[in-house]
Amino acid sequence: MTSDPQDLVARALAGDRRSLARAITLVELRDPAVATALGAHSVRRRSAPGVPHVVGLTGPPGAGKSTFADRLIGRAVDDGQRVAVVAVDPSSPFSGGAILGDRVRMERHTGQESVFIRSLSSRGHLGGLSSATAEVVDLLDAAGFDLVLVETVGVGQSELGVMEVADTVLVVLTPESGDAVQAMKAGLMEIADVFVVNKSDRPGADRLVRELRRTVELTPGPGWRVPVRAASAARDEGVDEVLDETRAHLAWCCGDGEERWSRRRGDARVRLYLDLVAETARDAARAGLDPTLEQALRDGSITPHEVAGRAR
Amino acid sequence: MTSDPQDLVARALAGDRRSLARAITLVELRDPAVATALGAHSVRRRSAPGVPHVVGLTGPPGAGKSTFADRLIGRAVDDGQRVAVVAVDPSSPFSGGAILGDRVRMERHTGQESVFIRSLSSRGHLGGLSSATAEVVDLLDAAGFDLVLVETVGVGQSELGVMEVADTVLVVLTPESGDAVQAMKAGLMEIADVFVVNKSDRPGADRLVRELRRTVELTPGPGWRVPVRAASAARDEGVDEVLDETRAHLAWCCGDGEERWSRRRGDARVRLYLDLVAETARDAARAGLDPTLEQALRDGSITPHEVAGRAR
Repeated sequence: MTSDPQDLVARALAGDRRSLARAITLVELRDPAVATALGAHSVRRRSAPGVPHVVGLTGPPGAGKSTFADRLIGRAVDDGQRVAVVAVDPSSPFSGGAILGDRVRMERHTGQESVFIRSLSSRGHLGGLSSATAEVVDLLDAAGFDLVLVETVGVGQSELGVMEVADTVLVVLTPESGDAVQAMKAGLMEIADVFVVNKSDRPGADRLVRELRRTVELTPGPGWRVPVRAASAARDEGVDEVLDETRAHLAWCCGDGEERWSRRRGDARVRLYLDLVAETARDAARAGLDPTLEQALRDGSITPHEVAGRAR
Repeated sequence: MTSDPQDLVARALAGDRRSLARAITLVELRDPAVATALGAHSVRRRSAPGVPHVVGLTGPPGAGKSTFADRLIGRAVDDGQRVAVVAVDPSSPFSGGAILGDRVRMERHTGQESVFIRSLSSRGHLGGLSSATAEVVDLLDAAGFDLVLVETVGVGQSELGVMEVADTVLVVLTPESGDAVQAMKAGLMEIADVFVVNKSDRPGADRLVRELRRTVELTPGPGWRVPVRAASAARDEGVDEVLDETRAHLAWCCGDGEERWSRRRGDARVRLYLDLVAETARDAARAGLDPTLEQALRDGSITPHEVAGRAR
């Protein structure tokens, strides 16, 4: 395989799956050459708003997000779309290891030419998870996918950050994952464009749907009214309705001169820029930390603020 | 109330609760004056290892962390300890609002002089959640608390980051929160020093205890053997055993010339320094972003990497 980043990116964008996988790995490893090469190829990116449709899929562990993703992929492929899945795995900052249990469930799609599935682990880059995801989505955009699914494992602060890359955020809950108040506490009300109550055959599903609808109705003002849908990914019930809602949301974003869509994408690009600046500064500070100063910092004889102040 | 930071910090450290609350607010707002004032007071900090004992309490929403915290606080107060609780609320980056439902459960302690409870919201500082927590813990350390409980609402990547401030991390799970594999996927195996299976009267509790024990036993090498304890905070069962385990963990950390304890605290200080550098760089980049360049960035005619490259 070629080791020239320009060449690698060109092959990836031309549809070579191994090159695409390799380019994503380099993005994960923060290789600046790939970013530069991608920048040079940015003319290739389609300027049509809403293409690709970037759909974020989040919710607490065990909500059935992967099964749901599996169903959505199936539907989109049936509609003739090329689909990429980015599974953002909050693997430990200590081990960098990713556990791929859920990937197995989606495996039946990996052999298909129209589906590309990739796990993305944070590898200790606590602040860099969102920016790495945004870059990978950029790459998949340039590579011509129609639907990019970004799936997180949990619903913590960083996962909310990851969701900022999406045009449409699908929040998957189950009766077991808690009530609407807990969804609010986890910050899910603000990011959800569509709510799915999965495992709708379980006790408490109807109640959760009602609670969420009531909570959504409390949100004042004009704009997108967040739909709440019951579904059972395992039984393949309600999936089409959810897909319809996500497409309706995209259409809404792209309406009115595409202003909402452009603003959302623009905000994401500004954030990515700020993330890159912050990460670069952090890396430089880590590399440039004087050993004597580090010892003083470690034993508490100088405070972190004082050291940061000196660096300024 | 005085507006001089030196004075404010002095009052806070002398035991004035309103000044302490105000100082924490200023830390949240990233007021550098408080950090400087605290630095000047750092001689006041006790040098004894393991004092205060910083205990992190994390787990998925609905696991009963607040009820558990409530019990632990009660026990520690009975033992004559001064206790501070930092409830890290992953409130939305959009609203900055904090929902205080759980705080109500702990309310019966707030009137006690020996207990100080404070919610800490990230207020949009995605990367700053850990550093803000670390600074607040520093302040509570200087203010003479014996036990500092740091509680998160969720178990996402940032919450794992927050836990790095703790000497001992208590992970609270329930049968409903999923199995041991999901705990692994959420990165909880690497950070847990003690596992608690709460709501031990529910079906599946015994099975989860066994699964976790088996998973813990798979972790090779010498060192701390992570205990797995069943408990029911609501019924007040098993709480003493958990408290004993956390204290045993602290004793283990402080053994062998306190090396493990010192390393953990030192690592946290280095991370806080790097966080501060990164945040400062981000703020400066946001403030200094040229409007024409920002427009080009937003409409995609220049990539985030290219803008970041120019700034270098």
